[in-house]
Amino acid sequence: MEEKKTAAIVSLSSMTADLDAPLHVLGFQFEDFSPQKVSGHLHLTDICCQPFKRLHGGVSALIAEALASLGAVMASGYQRVAGVQLSISHLKPAHLGDHVFAEATPINVGKTMQVWEVKLWNIDPSNSQRISLVASSRVTLLSNVPMPEHLIDDAERIRKYAKL
Amino acid sequence: MEEKKTAAIVSLSSMTADLDAPLHVLGFQFEDFSPQKVSGHLHLTDICCQPFKRLHGGVSALIAEALASLGAVMASGYQRVAGVQLSISHLKPAHLGDHVFAEATPINVGKTMQVWEVKLWNIDPSNSQRISLVASSRVTLLSNVPMPEHLIDDAERIRKYAKL
Amino acid sequence: MEEKKTAAIVSLSSMTADLDAPLHVLGFQFEDFSPQKVSGHLHLTDICCQPFKRLHGGVSALIAEALASLGAVMASGYQRVAGVQLSISHLKPAHLGDHVFAEATPINVGKTMQVWEVKLWNIDPSNSQRISLVASSRVTLLSNVPMPEHLIDDAERIRKYAKL
Amino acid sequence: MEEKKTAAIVSLSSMTADLDAPLHVLGFQFEDFSPQKVSGHLHLTDICCQPFKRLHGGVSALIAEALASLGAVMASGYQRVAGVQLSISHLKPAHLGDHVFAEATPINVGKTMQVWEVKLWNIDPSNSQRISLVASSRVTLLSNVPMPEHLIDDAERIRKYAKL
Repeated sequence: MEEKKTAAIVSLSSMTADLDAPLHVLGFQFEDFSPQKVSGHLHLTDICCQPFKRLHGGVSALIAEALASLGAVMASGYQRVAGVQLSISHLKPAHLGDHVFAEATPINVGKTMQVWEVKLWNIDPSNSQRISLVASSRVTLLSNVPMPEHLIDDAERIRKYAKL
Repeated sequence: MEEKKTAAIVSLSSMTADLDAPLHVLGFQFEDFSPQKVSGHLHLTDICCQPFKRLHGGVSALIAEALASLGAVMASGYQRVAGVQLSISHLKPAHLGDHVFAEATPINVGKTMQVWEVKLWNIDPSNSQRISLVASSRVTLLSNVPMPEHLIDDAERIRKYAKL
Repeated sequence: MEEKKTAAIVSLSSMTADLDAPLHVLGFQFEDFSPQKVSGHLHLTDICCQPFKRLHGGVSALIAEALASLGAVMASGYQRVAGVQLSISHLKPAHLGDHVFAEATPINVGKTMQVWEVKLWNIDPSNSQRISLVASSRVTLLSNVPMPEHLIDDAERIRKYAKL
Repeated sequence: MEEKKTAAIVSLSSMTADLDAPLHVLGFQFEDFSPQKVSGHLHLTDICCQPFKRLHGGVSALIAEALASLGAVMASGYQRVAGVQLSISHLKPAHLGDHVFAEATPINVGKTMQVWEVKLWNIDPSNSQRISLVASSRVTLLSNVPMPEHLIDDAERIRKYAKL
């Protein structure tokens, strides 16, 4: 039983490594991964925090950009996308040692533009209950950007993990 | 001569480690550090990039939030500040292996609110010439947030590096 | 019956005139008006449109700022508030002659800062059904801004219309 | 002499009426009108203000969206453009009776996307000197949007006023 759980965590961690290098460095682990929802959680260690031992606002922004971009690739049918704008509101603090849950959902998926909403909650890790809304953001992406041949493998890597 | 240069780089790197943990992990090195300007550069290694080998938009956002926050602490006279909103436009791509230069300057420093602009350029590392504007952002911060006693040392760490 | 309806419309229109001059000029009419929700609708005449006969993006932004500000005044207990940042995504077009419905709800009401979400839908005027999401925005406001004595009447005017 | 001045003002006013209906209602008058710069000024009357007799933040946003859109049409060679995102920071207040000057300049003009910066200053109307920065914004637009035949005249109207 314990063994299986460890295996799953290892595989989730390698999934992050495969998909988004800076997210992996922070320790982020994916949960949902589909064109309708991309989510996951993060345990706030030192490298996620600003000098005052709180979740770094830039880390919230990085998570938002990453989750929305992966979702937009899936929603565009595995085309290349390019983030054009990110707006994020920092609402409540989260502290060193806290657990946060992030969820990205599409607001509008057009042929040329997509807009995704990404929310970040402080959660109780024992039961995943949401305690407070830490940040709320909007990511605007240009989709169907031309894909050079040498990048096709990278898009395929995303498809491999997608649950449609 | 070579030795001195190495020493300076080590000390700059430890400055980033002291001031902002996620920036340090990415390899960011500070250049200007005053209430009027916070700047520095970054060599784009794998951990700065998204799956398509380009600068991760979330890394640009993280740099913006970090530089603006440190600048706002200095501009408020070493009070605590809290980022409330970040808006960033991704303009031109930067690729794995490129060098980028980031510069944060205050747009408005009020008693309660501050707004900083942070720009990111792709540069020629041989002469620091700016090649293209990669991203442009606005960071809105609440300043003069009450500082609990156990955080005073963290503010002092920032003061230590400031050139007024 | 007809007479009563006309009377109600006249009074709603004078409510907009009392509360927000540019909204009144555009022809906006309030529906909900409480600290939990501020909403209303607008028939798109020429003065709401850009040169290509579509809803002017700046009109969507004006509605967002207006509704969020009035809501924030109520949510702060009739203190003065000051808008500090507005971010709006324009998602689907609305055309000359269309009817739009706007709704503002609080995302976070703190003692110092408030963030409101304002959404704008294209609606079927015969049954108020929502056809498409035209715009989605976030308004960040500083609340509890000191109120000079000569402005107290203006805050009272807002209280007069509030349904708690 | 006086007569000429009046004629010029009438013609500037009809220019605004021709180009942007809500801007015209507010009393905005254009000054620069080229693909490199769109600017103009506004005398703050009652219909530009919020309930507390200050410049309505939504009016600043409307001006930003309008000026950037007209500039983007010119910069794209008189194609149709569509605003996708607006972010605005409200920095200093302007009051009923004040004069403001607005200036839009391009930050990035790509084939698909454009980003414009629009700044708004409180000015001394006697000498046009800038007193304070009231608002600073970024407008993101999709350019080269397909133009239906019946809208070609609207694009031509913009070209008529352009100084290249």
